[in-house]
Amino acid sequence: FTTDFGHSDHFVGAMKGVVAGIAPQARVIDISHEVAPYNVTEAAFVIAEAWQYFPKRTIHVVVVDPGVGSSRRPILAEAAGHFFVAPDNGVLSMVFDAAVHKVRVISNPKFMRREISRTFHGRDVFAPAAAHLANGAKAAAFGKLIHDYIRTAIARPSRESPSRNSKDAWRGAILKIDRFGNLITNFAAREFAGINTRPFEMRAGAQRIHRLALTYAETDVGDLFVIVGSSGYLEIAANQTSAASLLGCSAGAPVELDLY
Amino acid sequence: FTTDFGHSDHFVGAMKGVVAGIAPQARVIDISHEVAPYNVTEAAFVIAEAWQYFPKRTIHVVVVDPGVGSSRRPILAEAAGHFFVAPDNGVLSMVFDAAVHKVRVISNPKFMRREISRTFHGRDVFAPAAAHLANGAKAAAFGKLIHDYIRTAIARPSRESPSRNSKDAWRGAILKIDRFGNLITNFAAREFAGINTRPFEMRAGAQRIHRLALTYAETDVGDLFVIVGSSGYLEIAANQTSAASLLGCSAGAPVELDLY
Amino acid sequence: FTTDFGHSDHFVGAMKGVVAGIAPQARVIDISHEVAPYNVTEAAFVIAEAWQYFPKRTIHVVVVDPGVGSSRRPILAEAAGHFFVAPDNGVLSMVFDAAVHKVRVISNPKFMRREISRTFHGRDVFAPAAAHLANGAKAAAFGKLIHDYIRTAIARPSRESPSRNSKDAWRGAILKIDRFGNLITNFAAREFAGINTRPFEMRAGAQRIHRLALTYAETDVGDLFVIVGSSGYLEIAANQTSAASLLGCSAGAPVELDLY
Repeated sequence: FTTDFGHSDHFVGAMKGVVAGIAPQARVIDISHEVAPYNVTEAAFVIAEAWQYFPKRTIHVVVVDPGVGSSRRPILAEAAGHFFVAPDNGVLSMVFDAAVHKVRVISNPKFMRREISRTFHGRDVFAPAAAHLANGAKAAAFGKLIHDYIRTAIARPSRESPSRNSKDAWRGAILKIDRFGNLITNFAAREFAGINTRPFEMRAGAQRIHRLALTYAETDVGDLFVIVGSSGYLEIAANQTSAASLLGCSAGAPVELDLY
Repeated sequence: FTTDFGHSDHFVGAMKGVVAGIAPQARVIDISHEVAPYNVTEAAFVIAEAWQYFPKRTIHVVVVDPGVGSSRRPILAEAAGHFFVAPDNGVLSMVFDAAVHKVRVISNPKFMRREISRTFHGRDVFAPAAAHLANGAKAAAFGKLIHDYIRTAIARPSRESPSRNSKDAWRGAILKIDRFGNLITNFAAREFAGINTRPFEMRAGAQRIHRLALTYAETDVGDLFVIVGSSGYLEIAANQTSAASLLGCSAGAPVELDLY
Repeated sequence: FTTDFGHSDHFVGAMKGVVAGIAPQARVIDISHEVAPYNVTEAAFVIAEAWQYFPKRTIHVVVVDPGVGSSRRPILAEAAGHFFVAPDNGVLSMVFDAAVHKVRVISNPKFMRREISRTFHGRDVFAPAAAHLANGAKAAAFGKLIHDYIRTAIARPSRESPSRNSKDAWRGAILKIDRFGNLITNFAAREFAGINTRPFEMRAGAQRIHRLALTYAETDVGDLFVIVGSSGYLEIAANQTSAASLLGCSAGAPVELDLY
């Protein structure tokens, strides 16, 4: 389960109850319920970083759903042997970037609760769909394949015209601030390997950063630097300090990278 | 498990350890540990909204227990085929409203830890009771039936004398602020169906609200309105904004409803 | 699992995915993921208070790891029939205080993920080690016994020279602020039983406390007092109020105790 439902309400509990009622043998594992409310991009990043560590045939339920009650469709996606149950709002975009996939609309009322509220499809649509899937229902029974599902370019920095001094310039964004205040950018370390060998400047908030660290241990408390994060993206980090506080940045903020 | 123990301490972990030691096959599911500290009313609402989605024979452990260490009794309730283990402080009132029930005092020391602390009955009384129940102990073995358990009228707005313009007037309360800042009132939508057809005014904090929305999608970002929530209660909500912040209200605040 | 990873990121989810992939039958139980970032002492207290309530052969994974990526070693400890997987940074000190134990370095790459990031050993080292252990791998296969592991004196108040009026004086520290704002000191109630019979003064922040309460119920709302906590340590508590706010203290703050 990955949602923005938080831990204070009955929402997650009700979803787990629905699953326990339909598929008592299914084991529910929480990824995060603390996605910022309505933040589809953040949820897209969180599920993209977690799903690949689970075994095949895992059913991932992702409910960050600002459009609940509108005409947005519920979908069931298959990718790399995993299943994903989510609203069709782009929240699976980074999963779609990572693997060949097919997507179905969930339209079979057999796999929904009888009464469907207008505001809580996590309980009434997504949890029961996942539970029936766990019970062995075939993907094809949920609804027909669609190709016009929503997919957005979340992890794609754009090329900019370089300034006087730099040779290459890009503009990206902060995907997420993590628990430690690190700013996870959408610059994939593999695609921007140049920063390992060339002088660079990364700009975010009011800060300009020129240092790349290999480990936290090689830096001093309070130092600000770029590091290859465990997700494979460049992160702006500070040793035992919140880089986000130092920069005054939050998720979605722009990040510029110049290579010299 | 529904508690006000939060996620930072060892409290919930210790309770789960006790269950794992007594009933290793039992599966523990967290509803919420983020009930506001000591807030029995909020806990009463959370468990009332979650239990009904679980299968019969589920054992619900509810520990919001400001009276721990006093003479308040631990109870074991049965309702609609579910079990509830909780302190006798009214926290099950909304469950009792929803279903025929019987209540026992938990007095059999066989189902408690040998040493009982004065401050942590979650670990020493309620978790072991639930675990023994999961192992097949009979309810009757826990203690005798009681009828003087505490039950409070949480979800009962009171009728007021209407003002000059209105025909009907009630006074209710906010049961809970949810993660999204929606204010869940104790007006059951079914009992106040009049707002679907008659002009109304709902007052909370400094705001007067006259609009009923069917879905979030039909409103604009920032709009403030009344909506039938997924729990079946009227909620004061705002589109992608915290209504609680707009109104400056918190749980327990009064809400007035006039129908014209 | 006990970590400082919080609930908002994919970290805990990725660790659970790794476990599910290696040891699908293993059941993961969360103790806390809300240890204050990098706070090894707080984590040492949390795991010390939780492990003993679990059944033997439980595998406890403790990841609060400010030295990740440095030369600090991963360790596998055995104590009282339980297993502990953690970084070698003193986080198991209070477990070592409580039970005879032996400690191994985890060096066998067979029990790690193939690629090991420099910043996320929870996913790449500790979770797979725990999962292989759950699958039946022998402790001896992980690496050789070591004796120079880190162990710090967390729960040891120091004796001070008494002031004019007191007969005995100690200086201790706050181990943790709990969810309710209680300040858990490192004065073990058993070792400081004198406060049950002798007048005393406990000083923390700007407050001097002379009252010992047996239960919350015997105090009035807002009262400030010392109480024997459920962990067996003296706690500074306030009835339905945060003692931490009244005192302006946080974890690590000094506490002085004089007995007269």
